[in-house]
Amino acid sequence: MIPVNKPYLPAFSKYSKYLEQAYARNWLTNNGPLVQELKLRLEDYLGVKNLMLVANGTLSMQLAYKVFALKGNAVTTPFTFIATSSSLQWEHIRPVFADIDPKSYCLSLDSVKKHINNETTAVVPVHVYGNPCDVDGFEKLRESHGLKIIYDAAHAFGVKVNGKSVLHYGDASSLSFHATKVFHSVEGGAVIFRNSDDYERAMFMTNFGIDTSDGSIVSDGINTKMSEVHAAMGLAVLDDIDLILAHRTALFELYLKELTGYVRFPVWHEKSNYNGAYIAVTFSSAEQCTKVLEGLKNENIIARRYFAPSLNTLDIYCAQQSGSCPVSEHFASATICLPLYFSLTEKEVIHVCNTLKRYL
Amino acid sequence: MIPVNKPYLPAFSKYSKYLEQAYARNWLTNNGPLVQELKLRLEDYLGVKNLMLVANGTLSMQLAYKVFALKGNAVTTPFTFIATSSSLQWEHIRPVFADIDPKSYCLSLDSVKKHINNETTAVVPVHVYGNPCDVDGFEKLRESHGLKIIYDAAHAFGVKVNGKSVLHYGDASSLSFHATKVFHSVEGGAVIFRNSDDYERAMFMTNFGIDTSDGSIVSDGINTKMSEVHAAMGLAVLDDIDLILAHRTALFELYLKELTGYVRFPVWHEKSNYNGAYIAVTFSSAEQCTKVLEGLKNENIIARRYFAPSLNTLDIYCAQQSGSCPVSEHFASATICLPLYFSLTEKEVIHVCNTLKRYL
Repeated sequence: MIPVNKPYLPAFSKYSKYLEQAYARNWLTNNGPLVQELKLRLEDYLGVKNLMLVANGTLSMQLAYKVFALKGNAVTTPFTFIATSSSLQWEHIRPVFADIDPKSYCLSLDSVKKHINNETTAVVPVHVYGNPCDVDGFEKLRESHGLKIIYDAAHAFGVKVNGKSVLHYGDASSLSFHATKVFHSVEGGAVIFRNSDDYERAMFMTNFGIDTSDGSIVSDGINTKMSEVHAAMGLAVLDDIDLILAHRTALFELYLKELTGYVRFPVWHEKSNYNGAYIAVTFSSAEQCTKVLEGLKNENIIARRYFAPSLNTLDIYCAQQSGSCPVSEHFASATICLPLYFSLTEKEVIHVCNTLKRYL
Repeated sequence: MIPVNKPYLPAFSKYSKYLEQAYARNWLTNNGPLVQELKLRLEDYLGVKNLMLVANGTLSMQLAYKVFALKGNAVTTPFTFIATSSSLQWEHIRPVFADIDPKSYCLSLDSVKKHINNETTAVVPVHVYGNPCDVDGFEKLRESHGLKIIYDAAHAFGVKVNGKSVLHYGDASSLSFHATKVFHSVEGGAVIFRNSDDYERAMFMTNFGIDTSDGSIVSDGINTKMSEVHAAMGLAVLDDIDLILAHRTALFELYLKELTGYVRFPVWHEKSNYNGAYIAVTFSSAEQCTKVLEGLKNENIIARRYFAPSLNTLDIYCAQQSGSCPVSEHFASATICLPLYFSLTEKEVIHVCNTLKRYL
């Protein structure tokens, strides 16, 4: 069976070596040395500052909303994993859905402009599949409208645009380090803030609002801390990250080569790079998509509609939706992600592609 | 140096054995077999049903509030760790502080009754230091007033009252499995629901509102999942829990014996047991308390004011406070927790007690 995804497992001996450090110090959580080391190594690797590690990628979004004291509504994309919207809803910010761009599959700047109203305090775009949004366009919107831009960059580990990390754009970006991601810490995530003031406020909020310099309570806060045993996994995976990215990107490019002319792919941002996070393919119709999915399944190859459904169509958002999002709704019905993970081989990718073609 | 607390570390080989199971399955999170095993073993050990494991003890409180759709205000205690109130505030529920009972140090039922108003939707008492609240009294209040009772049972692992687990009372109870707790999973927690319907709603909410039986989105939700590597620690600690509780309780009783007549202790619920979570001692004045704290520190013994300050006095809650809480304010100024952890010896406890007496 070829699954759609598999977590990367560093050698157990390597993971243990980091864990043994935590044991030797008897320091298991609360901004410990492994978390501090991982933060610095990630800032260095990604070329960013003000990176705060958190317990998971959804909490990193929630924390960013609180730091900016968002209220009213946020314009966001319906073509994404549910967490982008459900984290807004949980934090009492109404998600307003704009449509996506049919080339990039990312949130359309033009559509966003049509959905901004006097209750809008933020825009939450997603670099979907690791493909950067129109970051320059959103930057202008940020300046002209005084809105906070918070990027859901869950898929965009290691992605650059215009020669620098995509995480430099907006007021904050959120990464997910869930086990299935290119880079992971079992469960985990990070928020990267543009301004150090925001980072410092977030550092209070991640630990109950406590200022650890004197123990006083200076702000709202909960517990969004990453533990040392999760940071240990992050460090062990980071040791291998160049290998992981190289192999995943090679598989991604092999899929492109094998399937070009048979399916449609998101058009990648021209000033960016691939990171091999997901390989998404779109069919001409929902029916063809279902036929391929079932065909692959018969041959023990697991693919999945991702992302589906288009979030604006969910009952739970009905009262709040901003009308239809026809592009997103079409893509949600006709797009799947194919198997892509580190232990997948080139031979298996070719087998997946050949099988897929038989069901077109 | 004798610290105030130290995490319990099970043998590394034991922890590794559980971790290797996760590696062998390549299943690192998302309600995996180790989480499922830990849930069942804890339900059995504690004698409860409807126990849901979560990423930390604060998220378990937040989840309970959402499951019950609390709004308005909740009457709670100011004599507790900040998370009891900050989790309410984070979830847009106004904490209203009632005073504590001078015997038990727990939330006073009489004071709660005076603070309930027409915006009150819940009461959030704390079994402080593991000492059960007036659970029978709160049970009557729950029935007479139709309020939700959500216990912060962060300290109350293994505590029974009236012959059954204290976790049976109220609509829900929240445990913390933070590294410093009697039982821990590095970071972690659990919510125990009285009703299985509430448990089932929480199971959707812990995983983005997804119904995993068909992948549909059926409710609000975020990510509050416990990982397999945290559950592995929980299982390894649970293997040793009888030893841990026996030793901690013996040290607790030794403190009582050595210090009776010198300091004041919380009066324990008469139908309950000790779990050795914390040893709290109260002095006759804030000045004496400070003198002892500094004296101990000079002798390399770390104690700490816990809980201080009384939360009703915090600026962050100023606009929301319900007047003064004189009992809580006094106890917060004059109460400390002394060193108590598994690797502490009886000899060290006697040394701490003798040192303390020298500074009275």
